[in-house]
Amino acid sequence: MSTSKGIFVVAGYGNGTGTGAASAFLFANAGYKVALIARRADDLKAGAEKIKSSGGDAAAFPVTKYDEQSIHEVFEAIKKHWPDEHIRVTLYNNALKLDKPFLELTQQDWQSSIDDNFLGAIPFARESILAFQPLPLNEYGKRGTLLFTGATASWRGNVTTSAFAAGKFALRSLSQSLNKEFGKQNIHVAHAIIDGLILTDKWKNKNRATYDAAENDPNVRLSPEGIAGSYLYLAHQDRSAWTWELDLRPAHERW
Amino acid sequence: MSTSKGIFVVAGYGNGTGTGAASAFLFANAGYKVALIARRADDLKAGAEKIKSSGGDAAAFPVTKYDEQSIHEVFEAIKKHWPDEHIRVTLYNNALKLDKPFLELTQQDWQSSIDDNFLGAIPFARESILAFQPLPLNEYGKRGTLLFTGATASWRGNVTTSAFAAGKFALRSLSQSLNKEFGKQNIHVAHAIIDGLILTDKWKNKNRATYDAAENDPNVRLSPEGIAGSYLYLAHQDRSAWTWELDLRPAHERW
Amino acid sequence: MSTSKGIFVVAGYGNGTGTGAASAFLFANAGYKVALIARRADDLKAGAEKIKSSGGDAAAFPVTKYDEQSIHEVFEAIKKHWPDEHIRVTLYNNALKLDKPFLELTQQDWQSSIDDNFLGAIPFARESILAFQPLPLNEYGKRGTLLFTGATASWRGNVTTSAFAAGKFALRSLSQSLNKEFGKQNIHVAHAIIDGLILTDKWKNKNRATYDAAENDPNVRLSPEGIAGSYLYLAHQDRSAWTWELDLRPAHERW
Amino acid sequence: MSTSKGIFVVAGYGNGTGTGAASAFLFANAGYKVALIARRADDLKAGAEKIKSSGGDAAAFPVTKYDEQSIHEVFEAIKKHWPDEHIRVTLYNNALKLDKPFLELTQQDWQSSIDDNFLGAIPFARESILAFQPLPLNEYGKRGTLLFTGATASWRGNVTTSAFAAGKFALRSLSQSLNKEFGKQNIHVAHAIIDGLILTDKWKNKNRATYDAAENDPNVRLSPEGIAGSYLYLAHQDRSAWTWELDLRPAHERW
Repeated sequence: MSTSKGIFVVAGYGNGTGTGAASAFLFANAGYKVALIARRADDLKAGAEKIKSSGGDAAAFPVTKYDEQSIHEVFEAIKKHWPDEHIRVTLYNNALKLDKPFLELTQQDWQSSIDDNFLGAIPFARESILAFQPLPLNEYGKRGTLLFTGATASWRGNVTTSAFAAGKFALRSLSQSLNKEFGKQNIHVAHAIIDGLILTDKWKNKNRATYDAAENDPNVRLSPEGIAGSYLYLAHQDRSAWTWELDLRPAHERW
Repeated sequence: MSTSKGIFVVAGYGNGTGTGAASAFLFANAGYKVALIARRADDLKAGAEKIKSSGGDAAAFPVTKYDEQSIHEVFEAIKKHWPDEHIRVTLYNNALKLDKPFLELTQQDWQSSIDDNFLGAIPFARESILAFQPLPLNEYGKRGTLLFTGATASWRGNVTTSAFAAGKFALRSLSQSLNKEFGKQNIHVAHAIIDGLILTDKWKNKNRATYDAAENDPNVRLSPEGIAGSYLYLAHQDRSAWTWELDLRPAHERW
Repeated sequence: MSTSKGIFVVAGYGNGTGTGAASAFLFANAGYKVALIARRADDLKAGAEKIKSSGGDAAAFPVTKYDEQSIHEVFEAIKKHWPDEHIRVTLYNNALKLDKPFLELTQQDWQSSIDDNFLGAIPFARESILAFQPLPLNEYGKRGTLLFTGATASWRGNVTTSAFAAGKFALRSLSQSLNKEFGKQNIHVAHAIIDGLILTDKWKNKNRATYDAAENDPNVRLSPEGIAGSYLYLAHQDRSAWTWELDLRPAHERW
Repeated sequence: MSTSKGIFVVAGYGNGTGTGAASAFLFANAGYKVALIARRADDLKAGAEKIKSSGGDAAAFPVTKYDEQSIHEVFEAIKKHWPDEHIRVTLYNNALKLDKPFLELTQQDWQSSIDDNFLGAIPFARESILAFQPLPLNEYGKRGTLLFTGATASWRGNVTTSAFAAGKFALRSLSQSLNKEFGKQNIHVAHAIIDGLILTDKWKNKNRATYDAAENDPNVRLSPEGIAGSYLYLAHQDRSAWTWELDLRPAHERW
């Protein structure tokens, strides 16, 4: 067994500029081997290279879908890639934010929203828990920590967010049920409500002016690094005082 | 136009002894034409006959699944059955309560839970809103009322309820989003959190002793009639003070 | 014992144009003797006269403060006034809505806010429960119903509402604790979240133009009658399905 | 200006074995000057000595009550004690947990509960905000952080907790209102829901057997150090992603 902290698995790495990527970097810096899961293989490989070039250890595990078989295979591949390491922290960061009036949402929209925001989390949570269960307690008195990225829509439905909110409500309930079911096995499940705008390339490409304004004002936008910091904090809480849920927003956000 | 109150549509009629049936009877007594939707055609027809034999007006509309096409056809059939009536109140009462540890839940379990508890509600809500939108305001200043049956699991995940809670959380979020989106069109969407045990034939057949004890103690079990009463109250709230959500439980319930 | 429904006690009658007055009238019409409690003796007497002139039975019980001694004396006076009746429903409707930035609130502001919004409810709840406990079950299977008027501020603090929200949060918690503690004695405690603007003389005198606009648009303002209707519904829920909390808002309210 | 992190003020230091004391030690270790406020002057002085003997810097500021005048004087004394330091983090940790049936609570009980759990926090929050407002932003982009200790009773009333819950609900609402009002001034207000039993001398003296069992099982009791860790984390969150509320409980807690 190396002296590393174990393996951090992130599903929903994104394109390298959001929460998934910031979490991957922060956990790599903190001594974790980092397994990147996402659909876009190119972004994923570039991400792994970037972490390695800055002294970390990472590998890319592209998937085409988040079903039971695919996710099982990915976890097996991760274990094989680092045969002497334990999977200690996993993060489900996938999200699909549809922003449409209810009557314009197609059956396909609903299926996509439920798949990405919620159903994909089921095999991911399953494999995480199965990976944690046989492990010895770590330095924090835990077998592992399973993290979920939530949103304002996780606790409040609204006009034009019906599809996104449904998936996020379901994900929040999953995190709560699992926290209650697996706490007694020293498996920590936590959920972060992300409330506000995050600086990402997607935003930059869509509206450069508002992006630049937000980039220059750290009071009004969420930094992916700040969110990643909360995940590292949650992963390192010990068993005698751990958190199921916290919210995160920039200082000047109205809510 | 008759002097009736319009049509009440209930999806999830059940076997005739639960909330769906009690609501059908109460709305029939209150002057509504009652359209019964469910999968079990026999129970459905027996239910419609029972309402008619006690002086009400009802018809059975069996479905094999709750997808967009089927539900659209059912609503068309309902309109054709009562061509001079308006659909004024609709209730989504379907539920599938799985009670299993997370690791024992199969992909099929998850799909069934999401389908029955949540996805089936989408086309039902869609058809309800499309039916309400062209209507004139009724005596309560509303075009229509769309009701959802929730459960304790709608706001609290727990051990062995992860699948049920996920569906119920999603349904609750849908009701909230729709309330906010369609309120300004005078369409009222409401959600009832049902917390406690309901007297049903299912329970009677499963455990006669506890059923009989509960039947003899109205303090400890929810009566379907009481729940139905809340639905009628919600349907008749006027536009100047209406409710999104209320909870219902028996007097001696611990919570 | 008369065939009346018993006595309805309302604390916080107001000036005759708000929720307290509308509730008094509605319960009088429904067959209750109505006991009016408030600080303004003149408005109170006028209110009682108005109810009596429309065929109801009412009496005014002015108080100078809501402490244990005063409220005990008022309840004794009510029992003496209708010696053959049972106190069956009580409503704490007092509220003091301060709307000030936190740093401008004086110690006196805080004390007044806590007194009116919360501490006055303690002896009122105490006397209500003591009055209910020895009673036989009524036709709804209950000894009595204790109602509380809440507000948006009951579940959401905000800028300039810190004092109001603190009192309303405390009142909400009281209603929940009492619901759980006294349910097993068949005493029903319920709480209504009132979200939106209510037509009152206070508003009319302050801003006639917006008042008139709202008066002519039942979609945008809460009617005291609608709120009163919810109180009567709650009082008449039976023990096998009762509600702790519901929200009430006008159809076009944004929330 | 020294290179220290500034001053940490804790109100409700306790007897030296609970959350207040653990927070004082942790913040002292992290480079803060520590101002201890409490009623028991002896425990307070012992606490300050203990911190100093382990290399930290602390001073005791006993109070007899938490009213506007006393708390103002204490803050003035703190500023005078460390004239070159900024007050950067403050914690209101006072609590009075009454555990009594509602009808046994006296007026004095209610007043004490509201005073300790809530009203004492008003002047403390006021002085904290007034101290923060003129400061330059710190390394986290904030003028200061105001922390509140909550409890399960902060979001759930229950049998025999009516007095405690009312105070804690009110305190939670205060923290939320202040978060929303002062966020735009870069003042961070946060609230921790402490859910579970904490190892304290009070418990040790009351029931040695259960205390010893809990002390030997870090899965079942909250450690004051874990709670203190969350306060340090909150204080050091930067302005681009900060938390209003998190919950904390031991791994095996049922909730």
